[in-house]
Amino acid sequence: MSHRYQQILDEIFIETRDLKGLGKAADYIPQLAKVNPDQFGIHLQLLDGRSFWQGDAKVPFSIQSISKVLSLAMLIGHPEGEKVWSRVGVEPSGTPFNSLLQLEYENGIPRNPFINAGALVVADQLISTFDAPKQQLIAFVRKLANNEHIHYDEAVAQSEKEHGYRNAALANLLKAYGNLTNPVEEVLDLYFHMCAIEMTCEELARTFLVFANEGQIPSSGESVLTLSQTKRLNALMQTCGFYDEAGEFTFTVGLPGKSGVGGGIVAVFPGKFSIGVWSPRLNEKGNSILGMKALELFTTKSELSVF
Amino acid sequence: MSHRYQQILDEIFIETRDLKGLGKAADYIPQLAKVNPDQFGIHLQLLDGRSFWQGDAKVPFSIQSISKVLSLAMLIGHPEGEKVWSRVGVEPSGTPFNSLLQLEYENGIPRNPFINAGALVVADQLISTFDAPKQQLIAFVRKLANNEHIHYDEAVAQSEKEHGYRNAALANLLKAYGNLTNPVEEVLDLYFHMCAIEMTCEELARTFLVFANEGQIPSSGESVLTLSQTKRLNALMQTCGFYDEAGEFTFTVGLPGKSGVGGGIVAVFPGKFSIGVWSPRLNEKGNSILGMKALELFTTKSELSVF
Amino acid sequence: MSHRYQQILDEIFIETRDLKGLGKAADYIPQLAKVNPDQFGIHLQLLDGRSFWQGDAKVPFSIQSISKVLSLAMLIGHPEGEKVWSRVGVEPSGTPFNSLLQLEYENGIPRNPFINAGALVVADQLISTFDAPKQQLIAFVRKLANNEHIHYDEAVAQSEKEHGYRNAALANLLKAYGNLTNPVEEVLDLYFHMCAIEMTCEELARTFLVFANEGQIPSSGESVLTLSQTKRLNALMQTCGFYDEAGEFTFTVGLPGKSGVGGGIVAVFPGKFSIGVWSPRLNEKGNSILGMKALELFTTKSELSVF
Amino acid sequence: MSHRYQQILDEIFIETRDLKGLGKAADYIPQLAKVNPDQFGIHLQLLDGRSFWQGDAKVPFSIQSISKVLSLAMLIGHPEGEKVWSRVGVEPSGTPFNSLLQLEYENGIPRNPFINAGALVVADQLISTFDAPKQQLIAFVRKLANNEHIHYDEAVAQSEKEHGYRNAALANLLKAYGNLTNPVEEVLDLYFHMCAIEMTCEELARTFLVFANEGQIPSSGESVLTLSQTKRLNALMQTCGFYDEAGEFTFTVGLPGKSGVGGGIVAVFPGKFSIGVWSPRLNEKGNSILGMKALELFTTKSELSVF
Repeated sequence: MSHRYQQILDEIFIETRDLKGLGKAADYIPQLAKVNPDQFGIHLQLLDGRSFWQGDAKVPFSIQSISKVLSLAMLIGHPEGEKVWSRVGVEPSGTPFNSLLQLEYENGIPRNPFINAGALVVADQLISTFDAPKQQLIAFVRKLANNEHIHYDEAVAQSEKEHGYRNAALANLLKAYGNLTNPVEEVLDLYFHMCAIEMTCEELARTFLVFANEGQIPSSGESVLTLSQTKRLNALMQTCGFYDEAGEFTFTVGLPGKSGVGGGIVAVFPGKFSIGVWSPRLNEKGNSILGMKALELFTTKSELSVF
Repeated sequence: MSHRYQQILDEIFIETRDLKGLGKAADYIPQLAKVNPDQFGIHLQLLDGRSFWQGDAKVPFSIQSISKVLSLAMLIGHPEGEKVWSRVGVEPSGTPFNSLLQLEYENGIPRNPFINAGALVVADQLISTFDAPKQQLIAFVRKLANNEHIHYDEAVAQSEKEHGYRNAALANLLKAYGNLTNPVEEVLDLYFHMCAIEMTCEELARTFLVFANEGQIPSSGESVLTLSQTKRLNALMQTCGFYDEAGEFTFTVGLPGKSGVGGGIVAVFPGKFSIGVWSPRLNEKGNSILGMKALELFTTKSELSVF
Repeated sequence: MSHRYQQILDEIFIETRDLKGLGKAADYIPQLAKVNPDQFGIHLQLLDGRSFWQGDAKVPFSIQSISKVLSLAMLIGHPEGEKVWSRVGVEPSGTPFNSLLQLEYENGIPRNPFINAGALVVADQLISTFDAPKQQLIAFVRKLANNEHIHYDEAVAQSEKEHGYRNAALANLLKAYGNLTNPVEEVLDLYFHMCAIEMTCEELARTFLVFANEGQIPSSGESVLTLSQTKRLNALMQTCGFYDEAGEFTFTVGLPGKSGVGGGIVAVFPGKFSIGVWSPRLNEKGNSILGMKALELFTTKSELSVF
Repeated sequence: MSHRYQQILDEIFIETRDLKGLGKAADYIPQLAKVNPDQFGIHLQLLDGRSFWQGDAKVPFSIQSISKVLSLAMLIGHPEGEKVWSRVGVEPSGTPFNSLLQLEYENGIPRNPFINAGALVVADQLISTFDAPKQQLIAFVRKLANNEHIHYDEAVAQSEKEHGYRNAALANLLKAYGNLTNPVEEVLDLYFHMCAIEMTCEELARTFLVFANEGQIPSSGESVLTLSQTKRLNALMQTCGFYDEAGEFTFTVGLPGKSGVGGGIVAVFPGKFSIGVWSPRLNEKGNSILGMKALELFTTKSELSVF
């Protein structure tokens, strides 16, 4: 069976050749603009321990919004964490990922924790709940990844801060609506750090395996989420993981997943596997073109979708 | 195992007692207002043929928007049917089910085929594709249900027509945008008939079993959709089946499903079962309060969610 | 002084030469598409009886939305007419003239009587208030114009009806919100007739002189509106007369006025004059390019603006 | 004639008695909440030098958004000032005064200079155009007012800053769209100071007399705006001076004017007079209830409206 998966990954690389060069990498901060946009990697991690990969699967990249799943997981794993659901919804937004419009229309309650406004609320509650949230978040991620080298890329974090006027607008608006407890600057600092976590496709797939494993970290056996919490997190990824392309991803790929503007995407099949893919060139919705296609081909060829 | 399922259905009826009387049945047409709002039925249909039920599972009701899945299935089962994707999207709408707002903002392309505007486009394409769409649609549904008695409730269809100003507005707007080929009146007539199909929970669950069975009708062995089409239809139900509560349903129930203002809900677990539930009292989003709760309890107790 | 005005009109024709050929005439109905788009006329009518003109001022054209002022004037001139203010607002819309969006957002109360939705409400109330509204409206207009030849262009009215899907959408939406008392078809018929009134620049200026004369028809001395009603009608033209370009018109022209997609514009200086201008080529907001420019030049050169 | 005006002001105070106590003063900063909400003053300043007043016309209050007219006047009086029209529109917004929604929808170009976003752009351009904008603005206002005592209330400015999250959101969003040249903090500082100018009704009326006098300061004879600029500023007040109640004010009062959340309103009759009114209790649109009513009564009784 392992053979079959490797073969699929190989086929994906052949069949997506024509898409190479399409789209444009994010360049709103110099650190992302510097990345070679033609890289492409994929890593499949099975729950039984086997793994398969192809391309630039060992090259680290900025996971950006993918980190929103990890910060939310840390929060709801805390006994007080579920309180966050009074401050943020679980509905797909139907609008671009950083829209202030909807936030204003809905009186400061972000539609879900995976749009920027929602992730800012999660960051705010992490600050209220944990003593040293920045240190504890990276420690939590290292634990999931079973890898002590995962770290914040400080240059990216700093650069996000210098160009993050839209996120500053969102944070100030949340504050105006009373949906931010801590100082705007502090929340933005944690948020920009979250987005600046660096991982390879391999590390990403290993980190997210916990969501395919009912909330238990496979490497250590430690449970960080209950079964029910894990299912809900996967459900959220399904409906809200791809900004205003969540329907398209669900329709064509059929797995819960999350993307980031760095070009990374991770997807999960509960009970079976997680898969990380990365290629910096994005479509106009901000999702990796090769990444989306690779996952569509993978679930089509393997017939492994949750639906 | 069958024993366990019956037990769960029984528990659901006990545990939802406190919710009885909450919410209000749809009353925008006299035919719906006449229904006893305190009815409550559930029917679980396994792929292996076994079934379990509780309450008013044999009482017929108006399936309303649930029919949108059936008309779409008939359309995409036709060799030319997939053309519809150039006229309608696959994204959750994030707005109430009959919003003209989004339609206007997005130049006449409905967000997905399960909002009213999208279903009108599907109806329009059925008219263009089939010779006798109204007759052929009910024949298609009877085939899925393995039941010759499924029919349009003409009084409901007529009443929808008399009160359907908002749907007439949607159809005229689609026409203004050039996204309706046939006469407005003709499209509305098919649409209002679709919504007026009557079924019991049992019939509903049996009809939808085809989507849990890779597109093959269990009773006859006939394939009406490919595996890939079936997965996509289930994916659409997951992200778009509950108007602006699709996220909530995915989050709490974790199964693809579809609701109707008649109070019915159907959900599907690919490879395993379908389940129909009905109770007329609705929450403010237009979904059955007892129906939503019953399915949440069912997937929690059975630990059967796709995530 | 009369000399000076004629000189200004002549200068306007010279100075706007470079704008000829810019823009496109309305062509959504064949009757409008057939009009020679390069016509350009202007007629200035002083309250003291003198008048000045230039170009195609004696060529009849379809006044379209300009008629919305006339139907509103007839309505509020009726003892029961002011009741309409509970069904329609007086605020500028800030959105294109036929937007359903705002209507939906604001629960079926059109922003003002000069957007299409608002004019449909006015038409509806005319039907409820008058025995033979279509006949009485044209009689009212003839009285203002002191001209028995003013008439509905039946071919235009019929053509509007055949292509009026967006207006049909608006009317159905108003009906759905309970803000239309009479049958949709009947309201649309009156509305399409209103829009199909034909006038020349000269007739237009003479008809609107009543609004520069405190509500009294200069030719007959009959008062059709009180001073206060006249001021309010002028105020409405100032803030709402040009769809989402009302601010621009107020800013550059500085007179109350109303435009139509036929390319006509009329403006009023209370206590002094009215002025009609016509040229079919429109800017992207649906207002006559030469007409807007001509009026800007007129008020700049004559230093006659209300501000 | 002066007698008649005094009589009208006296009548206004008698006839508005029943409205006393209606509405609520702004309390989003402590400094505004401390003001006695039951004060009510009015001051009419004729161009011929005569003036009439009633009530608390000599009590200073925070003019808030009324200052937006003054900062715009200073800017467009500068030879480079009209450049601002490429960065801000002249259309009524149709939405509440601090809406981010519209700004986002329209890509960072505020609808007009009197909504908060537009005034931030004006403040930004003042900083780019003048060496010491904060000092020069207050000097400009003192010149118009012929009064060296006009000043910023530093406590109000500081308090606005501490509670100004929504304005900080707007400024950051403008920055994200590239429509703010100077640092966000610097623009906000000037903006919060502008809003914190303190005046009495008498001072307000005298300051605004320049807009009734073709741009010439009556006290000194100095021209700060051309006739055309003055007319355009008045036109802007007419269509945009009252947030989403501009239509209502134009309809009922019929004069160009501007309101502030401090409860002040100023209106201008070109060639005749200016009038300042103040009462802190606001309607739900943020405009002074007694102030609006007083001006409606004034123009009705005096028959002095521009329409």
